[in-house]
Amino acid sequence: MAETRWLDAGEQRTWRAFVAATQRLFDQLDRELQRDAGMPHAYYQILVNLSEAPGRTLRMRELAAHTSSSRSRLSHAVARLEERGFVRRQTCPTDKRGALAVLTDDGFEALRAAAPGHVEGVRAHLVDRLTPAQMAQLREISETLLGG
Amino acid sequence: MAETRWLDAGEQRTWRAFVAATQRLFDQLDRELQRDAGMPHAYYQILVNLSEAPGRTLRMRELAAHTSSSRSRLSHAVARLEERGFVRRQTCPTDKRGALAVLTDDGFEALRAAAPGHVEGVRAHLVDRLTPAQMAQLREISETLLGG
Repeated sequence: MAETRWLDAGEQRTWRAFVAATQRLFDQLDRELQRDAGMPHAYYQILVNLSEAPGRTLRMRELAAHTSSSRSRLSHAVARLEERGFVRRQTCPTDKRGALAVLTDDGFEALRAAAPGHVEGVRAHLVDRLTPAQMAQLREISETLLGG
Repeated sequence: MAETRWLDAGEQRTWRAFVAATQRLFDQLDRELQRDAGMPHAYYQILVNLSEAPGRTLRMRELAAHTSSSRSRLSHAVARLEERGFVRRQTCPTDKRGALAVLTDDGFEALRAAAPGHVEGVRAHLVDRLTPAQMAQLREISETLLGG
């Protein structure tokens, strides 16, 4: 095996700051959403994605792609959301193998109630703390990472 | 309550790209560490922090701060690492209320074995995909978020 290319001091400092900053940010948003809406950020993202889809419906496969989550983790989350009455699962009428997730009216209401507080959190912990130039840099960095 | 300051289109695009990019990155690193070392990234971080402490020992409270994790999540992780024989918990000799976590020799060996593959992952999924200028921007952004 080739020699390990260890991180140099600068790369290491960047990596550790990035890990700590993202962990703290997502922990804060999780705690706030849990307190105010009784759900973690991953569940909120599922509701957002369904709310924007035609007929508030997505194939489970599409929903997994939209939320960057594994099929097994998504299945678990959707099952919890179904127990809460926020999502309904049904079989796709044109493709028996394609399971669908549908946002219910209660799910839509839960999302509408949670959204203002969540947006305030995203502003307070991220958007309002960065300059417009830093926001542009963060977008370019994120899109570079997603593009590969 | 004041009117909600919704994200504008640009802020929304940045936020969503950032969430998707960080989720994908940490999922990849988790999967790789799980496959190669049988532990998620959060456990790896615990071992790294202990390995760098004097006597490979930290108070649980310090370890929670170093790894940006809640006390309950950390307790759970340290209990799992103790079962694996990688960490040993003991009472602080000078402060009966202060629980200590100590990295064992087996834990140190597990870390040494996992490190080269993990560093390759951090390079492949982040460091090598960004320009030096982007790495500098990411550091500044992360340190700004941590500084508040």
